[in-house]
Amino acid sequence: MSVSLHVCITCRAGETVAEGTPCPGTRLHNALVAAGAPEATRIVPVECLSACSQGCAVALSAPGRWSYVYGRLSESDVSEILSGVAAYANAVDGIVPWRQRPVIFRKQSLARIPPLVLA
Amino acid sequence: MSVSLHVCITCRAGETVAEGTPCPGTRLHNALVAAGAPEATRIVPVECLSACSQGCAVALSAPGRWSYVYGRLSESDVSEILSGVAAYANAVDGIVPWRQRPVIFRKQSLARIPPLVLA
Repeated sequence: MSVSLHVCITCRAGETVAEGTPCPGTRLHNALVAAGAPEATRIVPVECLSACSQGCAVALSAPGRWSYVYGRLSESDVSEILSGVAAYANAVDGIVPWRQRPVIFRKQSLARIPPLVLA
Repeated sequence: MSVSLHVCITCRAGETVAEGTPCPGTRLHNALVAAGAPEATRIVPVECLSACSQGCAVALSAPGRWSYVYGRLSESDVSEILSGVAAYANAVDGIVPWRQRPVIFRKQSLARIPPLVLA
């Protein structure tokens, strides 16, 4: 199993960021790393998920599974994000029953993409 | 090469759709199929890309490449969408230089997701 949580670390989330201070995306990434990735998952920083007007944004993906992008997130969502990541990692096919998804995953989906067709 | 253009065929794009008539997502899918998929690409219908407030939506992906989701599309965008799909298919790594992307791909990105980490 190789679940990746990509976190956009360049996101300003509409804020004016003073020079030398971390932007909201970097702060979210740092907070997620500090809290710790759930078992069998990794937290991967990425420059821009092209969801700038809906930041901060993260993308959850794994081979053979649907990918999900969530937005309008901040450091206060760390615990809910990681609980959603753990549920995705533990679901056999990555499809978590609707009611078991964190509220932010139910309400702040930006998009989902079907598993890759390798043939 | 195996480039997939997933098209959400259940999208209502904010319209009230009369019973028995195709919704905007189905109409977009039909128009894309009628126009014909570019070489080495396939057009794949999918039920819901979870981008309902930004429909119609399509997702472009291929093994080892970034995936892209675009929104606020309609049948009038078919030719631009297919030109963007062809450019993506023809780019060695799927990364099309910014200025060579159709305007709708530059301005109507909902999200992009890094290539899967298989390790």
